Amino acid sequence: MLPDKDLKIKETLRVRFNETDPLGIVWHGHYITYFEEGREAFGRKWGLSYLDVQKQGFATPIVKSMCEHFLPLKYGDTFTIETTFIPSDSAKLIFRYRLFNEAEQLVCSGETVQVFLDSDGNLSFYNPPFFQEWKNTMGL
Amino acid sequence: MLPDKDLKIKETLRVRFNETDPLGIVWHGHYITYFEEGREAFGRKWGLSYLDVQKQGFATPIVKSMCEHFLPLKYGDTFTIETTFIPSDSAKLIFRYRLFNEAEQLVCSGETVQVFLDSDGNLSFYNPPFFQEWKNTMGL
Amino acid sequence: MLPDKDLKIKETLRVRFNETDPLGIVWHGHYITYFEEGREAFGRKWGLSYLDVQKQGFATPIVKSMCEHFLPLKYGDTFTIETTFIPSDSAKLIFRYRLFNEAEQLVCSGETVQVFLDSDGNLSFYNPPFFQEWKNTMGL
Amino acid sequence: MLPDKDLKIKETLRVRFNETDPLGIVWHGHYITYFEEGREAFGRKWGLSYLDVQKQGFATPIVKSMCEHFLPLKYGDTFTIETTFIPSDSAKLIFRYRLFNEAEQLVCSGETVQVFLDSDGNLSFYNPPFFQEWKNTMGL
Repeated sequence: MLPDKDLKIKETLRVRFNETDPLGIVWHGHYITYFEEGREAFGRKWGLSYLDVQKQGFATPIVKSMCEHFLPLKYGDTFTIETTFIPSDSAKLIFRYRLFNEAEQLVCSGETVQVFLDSDGNLSFYNPPFFQEWKNTMGL
Repeated sequence: MLPDKDLKIKETLRVRFNETDPLGIVWHGHYITYFEEGREAFGRKWGLSYLDVQKQGFATPIVKSMCEHFLPLKYGDTFTIETTFIPSDSAKLIFRYRLFNEAEQLVCSGETVQVFLDSDGNLSFYNPPFFQEWKNTMGL
Repeated sequence: MLPDKDLKIKETLRVRFNETDPLGIVWHGHYITYFEEGREAFGRKWGLSYLDVQKQGFATPIVKSMCEHFLPLKYGDTFTIETTFIPSDSAKLIFRYRLFNEAEQLVCSGETVQVFLDSDGNLSFYNPPFFQEWKNTMGL
Repeated sequence: MLPDKDLKIKETLRVRFNETDPLGIVWHGHYITYFEEGREAFGRKWGLSYLDVQKQGFATPIVKSMCEHFLPLKYGDTFTIETTFIPSDSAKLIFRYRLFNEAEQLVCSGETVQVFLDSDGNLSFYNPPFFQEWKNTMGL
């Protein structure tokens, strides 16, 4: 089963009460959690989740994250996270995220970059075999 | 060096912005974090912190926690956590907590109970030797 | 539409990565978040959510919470929160919670107590009219 | 009292247990909290904290945040946040952050951008008078 040409997934979540701040809106740092929820939804669907990677003896720590905010979310809102895998030549996992509110307006967008550490904590300069195989399967 | 007869410690913290909710007060669940900060301050002082216990090959998961709230804390407030070790005959760690605001009014009080798990994850029905020794040193 | 005799609701959630700790299990304080998710799912279904209560000019701060832990949850687990409204003669909202893992084993149980504050922040010693009406509608 | 030419402040914090993940390191999203702690320490010292700005009738929501990670922090670690105010011609608050571990190695660096919203929620295209005055006082 091949993914959409775009390697994209959508996941709908609801804002939790304790994610909102005294301004009545989602505290900006929680979008990093939402990105992770989107990334893991992608991973569960296409076999690249934290647990899948761990089974292969690797960890994929985040080395860079970025978020731009356009509109707030309030308590009671539901929203959709669109997570897109961005192919890269280097041994990295790059994901882009776009969050939309119920009116389908763009709430924020962002990106994370992850690297591969083997079980000794050493950085992989090349794609680990399981990841190269995954890319091949995905037609990348 | 023997502890106060009461095995008590005080630690002062400041409310973080993202710990406050749309009502402008600390979200109730964050008091569990403050209790942990108090417990670990006690542990660092008297050799019973998470890292001390881990070095002995044990984990001490929380099996019960309770919190009663009397007054709110707001963003910008500092507060003091008073953590007291409650001696017990059973193989448990029991701590009581009282939080006071800057006017020294009682904000909340609570209690946690922890048990000892060995490195295989088995529950200790008796005090692990390191903890019995700790109690002896403390005059308990 | 009358609720189950038990005023009970079930909601299924998935453990988030950043809710797990170095022991690989859900950090105990996050169960307070799960309780809130269960309570709000109840509130959305039966018209007693944070936003419903706010519209009536009231806030319902937590004055007591308690949690007992029996089994851990790990990253990747899904679980079910069963939230039950406990009728009370006093002007309080009491909820009990039971969390079950995928094998339907009891993970933890707990209780929260909330009071009613009017828009001036004064404690209601009697049920606010909207809540008395809610109880009547529910056959309580 | 004039600030350092660099408008810089340093604050030392300790990693909290519930900020660490199954890899035993601080979960990447919590660095956003640390940045906020640094920014507010700066604000308390130089009169530009959340509460100072709120008194002037403004909110300063984050519109962009970025973090690059170089080394992990573990439970038990203390670290220093260096927060630097970056002067800008536009009506924005820009801060840069660098975190150092106990060995004074760079753990991560980042940046946040904030805008000014008046009490009606409208974006300020020019510096609010209180902020222009603040810049003047600071010799900017």
